[in-house]
Amino acid sequence: MNAEKIPDIIIGRLPIYLRALQRMDEKGMKTTSSQELGEHVGISAAQIRKDISQFGEFGKQGTGYSIAFLIDKLRTILKVDRIWDVALVGAGDIGHALARYPGFENRGFRIVMVFDNDAGKVGEKLGSFVVEDAATIPQKTRAAGVKVAMLTVPATAAQEVADKLVQGGVKAILNYAPISLNVPANVHVQYLDPATHLQRMTYYL
Amino acid sequence: MNAEKIPDIIIGRLPIYLRALQRMDEKGMKTTSSQELGEHVGISAAQIRKDISQFGEFGKQGTGYSIAFLIDKLRTILKVDRIWDVALVGAGDIGHALARYPGFENRGFRIVMVFDNDAGKVGEKLGSFVVEDAATIPQKTRAAGVKVAMLTVPATAAQEVADKLVQGGVKAILNYAPISLNVPANVHVQYLDPATHLQRMTYYL
Repeated sequence: MNAEKIPDIIIGRLPIYLRALQRMDEKGMKTTSSQELGEHVGISAAQIRKDISQFGEFGKQGTGYSIAFLIDKLRTILKVDRIWDVALVGAGDIGHALARYPGFENRGFRIVMVFDNDAGKVGEKLGSFVVEDAATIPQKTRAAGVKVAMLTVPATAAQEVADKLVQGGVKAILNYAPISLNVPANVHVQYLDPATHLQRMTYYL
Repeated sequence: MNAEKIPDIIIGRLPIYLRALQRMDEKGMKTTSSQELGEHVGISAAQIRKDISQFGEFGKQGTGYSIAFLIDKLRTILKVDRIWDVALVGAGDIGHALARYPGFENRGFRIVMVFDNDAGKVGEKLGSFVVEDAATIPQKTRAAGVKVAMLTVPATAAQEVADKLVQGGVKAILNYAPISLNVPANVHVQYLDPATHLQRMTYYL
């Protein structure tokens, strides 16, 4: 297997499989089939088998997949068999919601520092964090070895903050700001601007 | 042009172009090129020309695109030349952030009703809304003709709420809950679970 050659669209489906498998596991299920998993995630059984087989032979003809085994494999493949420290930038409403969000537990992430570019917010408490000055991002993320960030500042500030994250060694940015970021090719960005995702659906209505 | 035949991946890029063009317009720019637009959104000029040409000839060789004209065309194509009423379901932290989010302005959406499945939240104020009982979703969304919803309830409640939205005639759901929804083929779902999007990036780190 050569990880570099697996299409990004397949990689994008793996976290969806993992999430569904973790829910099955929580319900006490031990095994599943590509058919059953497919019904949970709305993807065909054939597609699931094809996607998973890119990484090895993890299922058995007739008995299907061991849920615990497949969770373990997917967590390893996605590198969430560890905990990634995350820098949150933006202490507004969405930043507050993310800082209190319980859904990162068991999925490989924990927020370890919070920044804002607004001087009025620096020094404020946000949950168990004190909001730090965004100007100090490069030193602080680099010193702490933080590679992952969530960006919830307004669009007008997002590129400047992204530049600081890149300077600080961050390689993956979850961007809530409604703007495309210019980052080096080795830095990954996922976009969670709600209006853009809504517009993608209204086309079909 | 046959709208049904345009690949979804192209449709997914149109809101990104629109967002960048609206920012150019706000800055007072009048015209742009596929080259310049491409630099803003991180997509090649050739791809942008190809995507846009699916819908007609909107640019001129040598002079590029009129920003106002292209915004107008994209808003019409994406059906955000109108305002869509949106039902928000889930009055927790993310729901509060979305209810106060200023980024829906000028992008085609406004929240008009807020529901929660938690009896403890029903009757509470959320911004200018009173939180209504999720049990009443089918009647209320249907009576109001609401076609678009945002779902921010916990994963354990998400499918039940989605079923009610579908019963009420909703055709597009922006889902923040970390679970795949089972909905009829004519109902569209976009997923904004942050952990899933983070896991998609850690694979590459």
